[in-house]
Amino acid sequence: MGSTGSIGISALDVIAKNPERFKVEGLCAGSNIRLLKKQIETFHPKVVAVQTKPLAQALRNSLAAKTKVKIIYDEGGIKDIASWPSSDMVVSAISGAAGLLPTIAAIEAGKDVALANKETMVLAGEIITKKAGKNKARIIPVDSEHSAIFQCLQGSRHGNMRRLILTASGGPFLHVHEKQLKKVTVQQTLRHPKWKMGKKITVDSATMMNKGLEVIEAKWLFHADISAIDVVIHPQSIIHSMVEFIDGACIAQMGIPDMRIPIAYALTYPERIVNDLEPLDIVKTKILEFYEPDIKKFPCLDIARSAGTCGGTAPAVMNAADEVAVGAFLLKKIRFTDIPVIIEKVLNGHKTIHHPSLENILQTDLWARRETEKTIERMTI
Amino acid sequence: MGSTGSIGISALDVIAKNPERFKVEGLCAGSNIRLLKKQIETFHPKVVAVQTKPLAQALRNSLAAKTKVKIIYDEGGIKDIASWPSSDMVVSAISGAAGLLPTIAAIEAGKDVALANKETMVLAGEIITKKAGKNKARIIPVDSEHSAIFQCLQGSRHGNMRRLILTASGGPFLHVHEKQLKKVTVQQTLRHPKWKMGKKITVDSATMMNKGLEVIEAKWLFHADISAIDVVIHPQSIIHSMVEFIDGACIAQMGIPDMRIPIAYALTYPERIVNDLEPLDIVKTKILEFYEPDIKKFPCLDIARSAGTCGGTAPAVMNAADEVAVGAFLLKKIRFTDIPVIIEKVLNGHKTIHHPSLENILQTDLWARRETEKTIERMTI
Repeated sequence: MGSTGSIGISALDVIAKNPERFKVEGLCAGSNIRLLKKQIETFHPKVVAVQTKPLAQALRNSLAAKTKVKIIYDEGGIKDIASWPSSDMVVSAISGAAGLLPTIAAIEAGKDVALANKETMVLAGEIITKKAGKNKARIIPVDSEHSAIFQCLQGSRHGNMRRLILTASGGPFLHVHEKQLKKVTVQQTLRHPKWKMGKKITVDSATMMNKGLEVIEAKWLFHADISAIDVVIHPQSIIHSMVEFIDGACIAQMGIPDMRIPIAYALTYPERIVNDLEPLDIVKTKILEFYEPDIKKFPCLDIARSAGTCGGTAPAVMNAADEVAVGAFLLKKIRFTDIPVIIEKVLNGHKTIHHPSLENILQTDLWARRETEKTIERMTI
Repeated sequence: MGSTGSIGISALDVIAKNPERFKVEGLCAGSNIRLLKKQIETFHPKVVAVQTKPLAQALRNSLAAKTKVKIIYDEGGIKDIASWPSSDMVVSAISGAAGLLPTIAAIEAGKDVALANKETMVLAGEIITKKAGKNKARIIPVDSEHSAIFQCLQGSRHGNMRRLILTASGGPFLHVHEKQLKKVTVQQTLRHPKWKMGKKITVDSATMMNKGLEVIEAKWLFHADISAIDVVIHPQSIIHSMVEFIDGACIAQMGIPDMRIPIAYALTYPERIVNDLEPLDIVKTKILEFYEPDIKKFPCLDIARSAGTCGGTAPAVMNAADEVAVGAFLLKKIRFTDIPVIIEKVLNGHKTIHHPSLENILQTDLWARRETEKTIERMTI
C-alpha cells in the first residue's frame, strides 16, 4: 500500500531481488498511474487499488489488453486490498493519516503489517495495539529508527528496557541560525542531507516534527513512556537508534542509511537476507557525533512530546494540523517557522478526548484540518 | 576464581550489591592473603583455595579462630573449588594460562562459567567448546568486547552473522610515534587511558596483544573465522564491540567502560539487573571515533591473527611467549618493542600440532616458556 511512494519503491526493489521469497499479491497507489503501470508489468499482482474510478479507468486504458489484473478503487477498494485473502503481509506505506483505515483493515484481517505509516500509531496507537493483539497481527516497524529499536530489543525482556534513544540527522537546518529559519525556502527545506524521501516527511524532518511523530510511534510500538524516549541529534545517521537497558548497557543498531535494509528486515523478520548494498565501513565514517536537539529552534519536537504525553485525540490534532500546515508551506502560503505556531494554535483550541473511539479520532482529524485551514487563512490575509 | 584480581573484585562488588540473588560458595585467590581474608569475612564462603600450603597456613592464622571456612590449596585444591558441588556458576578470572585447568574442571563438573580468562579459549578453544557442549555447561563471556558481541547476538541466528567487529581503545601509545615506542617505560605502559586492570593485561593492551588474544577468543566463543573478525580502534571505549549481519545491519553494544556491567550480565544472563552506575550520556561523550589499527606499529595483532588462523598449538605458544616476555618487560629486562620480536622468534621455532590434546597444549606451553626465557637470555647478554 503506497507502492509508488519512496518506501513502496524500495520495498518492491527488495521483492524484485528475492523472487524466490516474495510474491506481490496486490498493489495500491495514489495517483502515479504511470509508475503503477510499470509495477504491474513487472510484478504481475492479482489486484491493484487506486484512489478514484477515473484513475482506475485511466490505468486500465494504459495497460495492454491481455494484462490480467483486477483493478479496484476508492476507500472500499483500498480496504479490500489491505485485507486481500491470499496475502500474508501488508506493507503499510501510504503517506499521512490516509494510511490509518487501510492499516486497520489489514490488522483486522489478521495480516502481519510492515508499518511505514507512522500516522497509524500517532493517531490510533491504543486502538491499533489492542486490535493487533486480538487479531494476532504482528506489527513490524519499517521506519529506520523503529526498526533499529525493534532489532535492538530482540532477545531481551520488556522489563529490562529503560530508555529508548531515537537518533535524528538534524535535517537541513541543523547549522542554520534560529533567526534565519523564517526565511528558508521550500527548495532548501526539501534538500535533506541523508535520506531521500517524500516531500511531506522531508519538511517534517526539517521542522523535527518527524522525530516528534516517531516519539509517539515508539511509545505505542514499544510500550514506553514518552518520558523514557530521548531524541539525540546524530548528523551522520549511522546509528539508527538505540535502547538503554536497566543495567546501563545500550544496544544500538547501525548501518548505511538505506531504507531497503529495514524494509527487508520487516519483510523477512526474524530472518535476515543478503543484499548487494555496500556494508558500513565505520573506519571510513571515522566520526559519529551526538548533540542535544535545539528545542527552541525546533519547537515541533516538544509540541509532539506534549501531545504524546497528553494522549487521547491530541496527537491526531497535531498530526492533522501538521499535514495541512506543511501543505501550505509547500504551496508557499506560510513560512517555515509558521508551522509550529499554527499547530500549537490548533492544539490549544482542542479539548482532548481520552481513550477515543476510531470515530472520535476521524472526526477530530477532520475538525483539526478545517481549523488549521482557517488559522492559515487568518494568518495570510 | 581469581577473587583478589581486578575482575574478581568487581564480581564481588556486583554480588555484594545483590545479596538476594547471589551467594558466594567458594573463593580462590593467588597470593593476596590480606584481601582474601577480608573477602572471607564479608562473603562467608564455605571454602577457599590458595596456591600453596604455606599460603593456606598464613590465611588460617590471619583469620579469627571462630571463622568457619574450609581452606584448601595447590592445583588439586583449586580444581576442587572449580567443581565444588553446591555452586551453580564459576567466575573464571584467574590471570593467564594458569586459568585453563581450573576452568576445564568447572566445565567438566557442568558448571556455567562466566569466562574472564581469555587464555582458556586461546589455548584450548577446540577442547573447551567440545567439553562445554558435552557437559551442558554454558560459557558466558565477561570480557567487555565479548560480552558486547554476546549481547548483540541475542535473539539472532548464527547463520545471520557476517562479521564481528572488536573495538580497541588503542591503549596508552595510540598517539606515540612508532620510533618512540622502543623507549617507552613500564610506568608509561601501565597508564591505560580507559580501563583499570591487572599489569599483564595492561601491557597486552599497549602492545595490542590483548586484542589479538580477544580475536582468538571470539573465534571460539562465536564460531567465527578469524578472517571475519575485524579490529577497529575506538579511543572513547564507548562501543564495546559490534556484530555485522548478512543484510549489512550492525548491532553494537555501548556503555560506560565499567567491568561491573558485563560481569553482572554474565552472572544474571539472560536477565539484567539494576545498578547504581551513572548511565551513558552519549551527548556528553559527543564524539565517537574509529580508526584502522596500525599493524606496523603494533605487530602483535597480526601475530595473533596468524596464530589464530593457524590454530592447533600455535596460539598456546604465542600466549606463553607473551606471558614470559611481558614479565621480562615488567622487570625491565627487555624493551617494549622486543615483546613482538621475541614472540615471533619462539613461534618460528615451533612446529604446530593440529587438534592437540590437552596434554599436547600443556607441554607446548611449558616448552614455549622455556624457549622464551632462553631467547630473552640470549638477547640480554
